[in-house]
Amino acid sequence: MEINLVSDTITKPSREMLVHMLNAEVGDDVYKQDPTVIALEARVAEMFGMEAGLFFPSGTMANQTAIKLHTQPGEQLIADKYAHVYHYEGGGVSFNSGVSCCLLDGNRGMITAEQVAGAINDPEFYHSPLTSLVCVENTTNKGGGACYELEDLQKIKKVCDANNLKFHLDGARIWNALVAKNQDPKAFGELFDTISVCLSKGLGAPIGSVLLADKATIHRALRIRKILGGGMRQVGYLAAAGIYALDNNIERLAEDHRRAKEIAEVLKKVSWVASVEPVETNILIFSLVPNCIEKNLIELLKQKNILISSMGHGKLRIVTHLDYKEVMHTYVLETLQKLV
Amino acid sequence: MEINLVSDTITKPSREMLVHMLNAEVGDDVYKQDPTVIALEARVAEMFGMEAGLFFPSGTMANQTAIKLHTQPGEQLIADKYAHVYHYEGGGVSFNSGVSCCLLDGNRGMITAEQVAGAINDPEFYHSPLTSLVCVENTTNKGGGACYELEDLQKIKKVCDANNLKFHLDGARIWNALVAKNQDPKAFGELFDTISVCLSKGLGAPIGSVLLADKATIHRALRIRKILGGGMRQVGYLAAAGIYALDNNIERLAEDHRRAKEIAEVLKKVSWVASVEPVETNILIFSLVPNCIEKNLIELLKQKNILISSMGHGKLRIVTHLDYKEVMHTYVLETLQKLV
Amino acid sequence: MEINLVSDTITKPSREMLVHMLNAEVGDDVYKQDPTVIALEARVAEMFGMEAGLFFPSGTMANQTAIKLHTQPGEQLIADKYAHVYHYEGGGVSFNSGVSCCLLDGNRGMITAEQVAGAINDPEFYHSPLTSLVCVENTTNKGGGACYELEDLQKIKKVCDANNLKFHLDGARIWNALVAKNQDPKAFGELFDTISVCLSKGLGAPIGSVLLADKATIHRALRIRKILGGGMRQVGYLAAAGIYALDNNIERLAEDHRRAKEIAEVLKKVSWVASVEPVETNILIFSLVPNCIEKNLIELLKQKNILISSMGHGKLRIVTHLDYKEVMHTYVLETLQKLV
Amino acid sequence: MEINLVSDTITKPSREMLVHMLNAEVGDDVYKQDPTVIALEARVAEMFGMEAGLFFPSGTMANQTAIKLHTQPGEQLIADKYAHVYHYEGGGVSFNSGVSCCLLDGNRGMITAEQVAGAINDPEFYHSPLTSLVCVENTTNKGGGACYELEDLQKIKKVCDANNLKFHLDGARIWNALVAKNQDPKAFGELFDTISVCLSKGLGAPIGSVLLADKATIHRALRIRKILGGGMRQVGYLAAAGIYALDNNIERLAEDHRRAKEIAEVLKKVSWVASVEPVETNILIFSLVPNCIEKNLIELLKQKNILISSMGHGKLRIVTHLDYKEVMHTYVLETLQKLV
Repeated sequence: MEINLVSDTITKPSREMLVHMLNAEVGDDVYKQDPTVIALEARVAEMFGMEAGLFFPSGTMANQTAIKLHTQPGEQLIADKYAHVYHYEGGGVSFNSGVSCCLLDGNRGMITAEQVAGAINDPEFYHSPLTSLVCVENTTNKGGGACYELEDLQKIKKVCDANNLKFHLDGARIWNALVAKNQDPKAFGELFDTISVCLSKGLGAPIGSVLLADKATIHRALRIRKILGGGMRQVGYLAAAGIYALDNNIERLAEDHRRAKEIAEVLKKVSWVASVEPVETNILIFSLVPNCIEKNLIELLKQKNILISSMGHGKLRIVTHLDYKEVMHTYVLETLQKLV
Repeated sequence: MEINLVSDTITKPSREMLVHMLNAEVGDDVYKQDPTVIALEARVAEMFGMEAGLFFPSGTMANQTAIKLHTQPGEQLIADKYAHVYHYEGGGVSFNSGVSCCLLDGNRGMITAEQVAGAINDPEFYHSPLTSLVCVENTTNKGGGACYELEDLQKIKKVCDANNLKFHLDGARIWNALVAKNQDPKAFGELFDTISVCLSKGLGAPIGSVLLADKATIHRALRIRKILGGGMRQVGYLAAAGIYALDNNIERLAEDHRRAKEIAEVLKKVSWVASVEPVETNILIFSLVPNCIEKNLIELLKQKNILISSMGHGKLRIVTHLDYKEVMHTYVLETLQKLV
Repeated sequence: MEINLVSDTITKPSREMLVHMLNAEVGDDVYKQDPTVIALEARVAEMFGMEAGLFFPSGTMANQTAIKLHTQPGEQLIADKYAHVYHYEGGGVSFNSGVSCCLLDGNRGMITAEQVAGAINDPEFYHSPLTSLVCVENTTNKGGGACYELEDLQKIKKVCDANNLKFHLDGARIWNALVAKNQDPKAFGELFDTISVCLSKGLGAPIGSVLLADKATIHRALRIRKILGGGMRQVGYLAAAGIYALDNNIERLAEDHRRAKEIAEVLKKVSWVASVEPVETNILIFSLVPNCIEKNLIELLKQKNILISSMGHGKLRIVTHLDYKEVMHTYVLETLQKLV
Repeated sequence: MEINLVSDTITKPSREMLVHMLNAEVGDDVYKQDPTVIALEARVAEMFGMEAGLFFPSGTMANQTAIKLHTQPGEQLIADKYAHVYHYEGGGVSFNSGVSCCLLDGNRGMITAEQVAGAINDPEFYHSPLTSLVCVENTTNKGGGACYELEDLQKIKKVCDANNLKFHLDGARIWNALVAKNQDPKAFGELFDTISVCLSKGLGAPIGSVLLADKATIHRALRIRKILGGGMRQVGYLAAAGIYALDNNIERLAEDHRRAKEIAEVLKKVSWVASVEPVETNILIFSLVPNCIEKNLIELLKQKNILISSMGHGKLRIVTHLDYKEVMHTYVLETLQKLV
């Protein structure tokens, strides 16, 4: 049996989730006639205290739509140098929105209000792009699952307000942050113009993200989603999985976090690991000692049925998730300890 | 019970299709590890004799990706004045690809080789956009379900070849054409650089389209799909519905066509209809006599639980489909005959 | 000596204009420190009763900037089927702005308020592009120098206001219209959100166009001009030619119009001409009788040192201008009369 | 009398250059009928040993066109973190080409082959943008006029070739590099796919840049220039200034360099300067000691009729040029020495 720690996107629906999907009441969502989608959108919006939500086939499309909603071509957004929107959305910021990125040298993917303030182009200096948006990621993916303190986000929000910038949260793994920090989603709803959340990572649904905003913005988002090709028909089957996930799979994220920390503790002690980045949620990043080759380690673990992935530049990543069970965890801890 | 003749997109999966979905073997399609998606893509490609296929969340995204694959910003495509890619994809041709449309005055949505030849801009006259793509729709949506003769498409293909133009088929309802004309899908595979087909219209799957092309083109399409946000995770549930539809729901389209024609026969005889366009497949377009108001007729039918839609400019549309059963058909024919 | 009737863009500055250029006071216009440019921009704005102007290296860039100012990607503009912005600006509407064109079947390049009203997409129907701009051309280029009645433009303006559409005038040859119709430029300034005017066609300056609008719009235009690469340095030399042209070359356009009409009178009488379109300004379009080949006529006239051009589809075009003098005119009239 | 050391773009044509302009033979360059433009384009191409050249109204448009020629939307270019194309072209890389920038932490604006090699995205990893272009600037603007060794560029070229990347030189101030390093322009022509050069900075022409490439690329560039609005009419007046500048103003750049170095020597000795960056050409960047405020220094010098500019972040810039004469230089050196 393969133990896949490459990503939390690989989870498969449980039987219970599938039955929930099977029994969903559906309609044509292009005409906004799918009651299950409407229920999911309202549910997530309500959780974050925002006016409205819109279902998307992917987190990438939800983020790209948010960026388009807040910018005009030629403008610039500010984000961390590890930002998913810059690195892993296919260059979509420039393709879809004609926008450039000003990347900041943050800490584990998290930026500060001071950094943002220093990166805003003078709006009267028309040679440089107009800065119009700040994007933060919480938890950070490439930053190793780090999560923001609310007050640090509040400080960035003040800079945004003072400089007429919109503020978007890439909340693909916001659920992990909420659980890890015991935060109230409504506190995020108050800060951001748009929030994207994923149902298909830690929460274990097969497909789907939701974009949150005020009603007028979501009305405009519907048009952008159509243009990008995200308007789908009987989407209720997917939305039903999301609703099931919200009901059943949030609090258990704490287990993923515990297991990631336990793996980290083991890795800190083995001879072939040079350093382990702090673990706050379900992502663990570590580096090997110089004479230990990444590729070889990945191969060695693969022979023992454990899959992990490289982040390049000498870093490796382990991600725990819903389908990583305690029995697997015991095996992984033992295997890592014994590995030479 | 409501009888919805607004569109064939409103069909809901049968219990058998749902069970098929439930039992699908799935994986993370972003990593190309979903066996059911891979099987569907291969199946459709093989049907049309093309090298490869790629699953999309919508026909719009499949068409938009094809247009992007064949063009550079600033270039121009040629299509019929009724083309779905121009009218009903949110302006995506220009948004996603920076491309303009040269619209031809075709017959029921179908254009001729002569028209295409006359619309190609001189490539050396750099003031005008470079013509680089021809898009045809088969069957035509706004054209009332009309379908091309193969030889007419072959003639257009010759013009494309002679002028270095790519040739895309928007085959959202190609299944209806194949059944109506008793054509071989491989004959289409030979003609086109890309073909998009929909699983969610006549075939009755809840979500999904497939883009077909050669392998190199599909490899590039994967990147465009990612940028537009069409990369999804456990897509096998949707692909399984598609496979079920291909197995079970193609030949029965003939029933939809018969019923549409029978409705047309009735409409030709009633006093309040001015004219009925020829019916070849499952779409029927008709006009009212001057003193009969569209809106009133739609409302009157709605009171009798029959939903139809307006196309503007005095035209009304009826679409038959998988969920339009014989018992409903009998009722509709009777109701239309008796209507004053 | 060659008599070039291909276009009014081929005129060369007179000695007086050149001396005016040579003596211009200049500065770095990127820093807005060129006094002659500032004077020209203010002068043209004042003529049309608009708040501000901005110099551009071409009419294409002035039009493209206006379109970008008024639209977001994915939106649609309405124009005549002959529109310069659609046909002769390299596909820039889609390239620069991601916008599509809804082309109307106007009369000699001129559209009506009724046509515009019928072409506006329902803003709530998000499948179709949002209509946001109407562009008219005056005089029309491909329409044969036709010019609008003010009241027809006023009617279009009302439709724009009622539907939240911006209104742009491509006034590349507005000077010809003002002279032909004896209109007040301020009447145009009242109607349009933006107006582009050319200094390098009938007016005889070597390079340059001016875009007119309110101050806030021109402030934004500066940024678009920079992005497109239209920010230049010591532009005063070109602006000086424009000022000279405004002082000296407007009223004399009446001569160009007279000559074009006199040529038309001759053409109406010769056996090889099938029809001559009405001549209102300096552009004359005519068709040949069936057995007379365009290419041959152009070649024949070339042998007699008279250059004219084809518009395709059996039409030929003659354009009179500043460098087409009376002695040439006499020769042209004689030559046409005698031609077999 | 004001001594402007803000930029070398502020120079005004000499009387001799103006007379040269006045006497230029011109034509309509949109039809490629301006002999002086054609001569200039051929002249610059020949200097660099490249096949063809194209005149542009600005260096920004020449660079933006080059970037468009080498990329598709969604792709990524590699450049130094100080790159003009990223900072000072209005966000055009993303607006005009839909392309993102991967910025490297170079030395005074200059990057190395190793840095480039490490920044190329894996072309098979379709989540990240496809890397397709490397842009270098020589001399560097924000890097303080630094210039590359040819062998360092050759090493980058090898990386480009090995990875299927195009290579563009932003040579706005290449003339300064050629003079400072005594390099042969043909050595640059061998390395790059495209080179942009400016006539309006050190060379003293009022307007104009030239893009160099092979013939097929320049043929495509003509179309992009048209779309961006850079097609102009009687351009020969500007081209004539360029030809005069090539004949008379290249070698004298050594004087600008000497003067910049002499100013640097003075600044190194005064108490209020913290550090002076190395001076290789005509740009000098220095920092003030902590208790000395940038704004105050700029104001103090302004009162003494010397204009210099801030680069932000505590840096100041001085640029020498054609209109900065020896008598001014003597005064500036004295003034700086005496300043408290």
